[in-house]
Amino acid sequence: MDGNDIIEWLNEGVDQWVSGQSVDCVILGYGNHTLYILAMKWKGIESWTLPGGFIFKDESMDQAATRVLKDRTGLDFPFLKQFHTFGNHDRRDEAQVDRELAVLGITNSKVVSWFKQRFITTGYIALVNIEDCELQQDPMSDDIAWHPVENLPSMLFDHKEIIDTALQQIKIQINYLPVGLSLLPEKFTMKDFQKLYECISQVELDRANFQKKILKLGITERLEKQMGGGAHKAPYLYKFDEQKYQELLDKGIGFMS
Amino acid sequence: MDGNDIIEWLNEGVDQWVSGQSVDCVILGYGNHTLYILAMKWKGIESWTLPGGFIFKDESMDQAATRVLKDRTGLDFPFLKQFHTFGNHDRRDEAQVDRELAVLGITNSKVVSWFKQRFITTGYIALVNIEDCELQQDPMSDDIAWHPVENLPSMLFDHKEIIDTALQQIKIQINYLPVGLSLLPEKFTMKDFQKLYECISQVELDRANFQKKILKLGITERLEKQMGGGAHKAPYLYKFDEQKYQELLDKGIGFMS
Repeated sequence: MDGNDIIEWLNEGVDQWVSGQSVDCVILGYGNHTLYILAMKWKGIESWTLPGGFIFKDESMDQAATRVLKDRTGLDFPFLKQFHTFGNHDRRDEAQVDRELAVLGITNSKVVSWFKQRFITTGYIALVNIEDCELQQDPMSDDIAWHPVENLPSMLFDHKEIIDTALQQIKIQINYLPVGLSLLPEKFTMKDFQKLYECISQVELDRANFQKKILKLGITERLEKQMGGGAHKAPYLYKFDEQKYQELLDKGIGFMS
Repeated sequence: MDGNDIIEWLNEGVDQWVSGQSVDCVILGYGNHTLYILAMKWKGIESWTLPGGFIFKDESMDQAATRVLKDRTGLDFPFLKQFHTFGNHDRRDEAQVDRELAVLGITNSKVVSWFKQRFITTGYIALVNIEDCELQQDPMSDDIAWHPVENLPSMLFDHKEIIDTALQQIKIQINYLPVGLSLLPEKFTMKDFQKLYECISQVELDRANFQKKILKLGITERLEKQMGGGAHKAPYLYKFDEQKYQELLDKGIGFMS
């Protein structure tokens, strides 16, 4: 697939998509005690962008987000949640829109005016352990990769602001999101869980207090000790009781304070 | 103003507004230890609706929400925050749209097709003490009134769902929203503050623990004792240190757990 396929895709799409609305997904990945964001490059476009796309006239915005993410990454995300809509009239830099159109060689006046109109975009977050992900690059893209939150590349339009808003919302809603369930590997230590919470909330937590509160929730099941090191020092591994974890999320995991 | 003015307003507006997008506001009012929602009736329309409207092509969505709310209620709301966008393709009942058009006597085919198109709406919340509000009814409406959250009337389209989502979001984000500052009167007792938190979170709180945590935050200033009753029993009144309260909101008031 090359630039012509993007043109083809747009030519066909403009009559089928809702006008002036898009979805963009902030996929928060976790691995090696580090938070990552998934970004891609459309064919021929230099900037990194969030995986995103448009909404068919006969599908809901939530359905569009699920479909678009599957198209861009090859993956199904069990947890995908809307967090904010970006509605500034000047959120897309006009000169950048023109450059993109030129790079892609789009000249069809209908597509040009569709592309240049005012767009709002609704942001969705997904949470995933990066070791569980086998990314499949979209044929319409040149690259797809995880970028550490602490060291993001230059992003298209207001996509950096979309990421910042997502991270702020994940922090605010941490006790109502399946962060442990979605981001940790199947087996983990209490220290792993604590580090994840610290990464997201940007707050240092007391070890004993954290462990006490988690155990009290009854959402974890203790397994064998972690391999390696002296047996007397090795910490226990745990796994989640998924059903209990999900049940607790409805009223909020009130253990951060 | 009568039905003709609504027709006039729509005839002029359809060329100036962004297509297919609206804003709807959930104004959460508080008074007498009760939560209320503000709802209005458009002239000639039987159902109650949230105060809402459309977005001019040259204004941001946030600006539209502020302007629309001023138009519908006569009030400026210092705190107004987006909480969710409702993007189901079938969120507006088609038969109900047709009935509205008929009641309003709208026949201009441009307005009819504009009105019948798919609409997404972005919800905003405002928080206000109802004793601070002198509502001014919009000339295009028949009524505007506070309705107890526990006893809401039948609402247009998906407006009941919009209210439910707003209440859920306020509960989730309670420690990041100026609930005390916006909803309590200028002078209040600790019991007033606790009751407000209980109303919103639907969780019963321990009196001594709540008071201890609040005092530790340093956002309140103690005033005289409340008038009436025996002096030895009268509780102290408090007021907020607004600046400290606002500062704390950025990192979250971590006292609910």
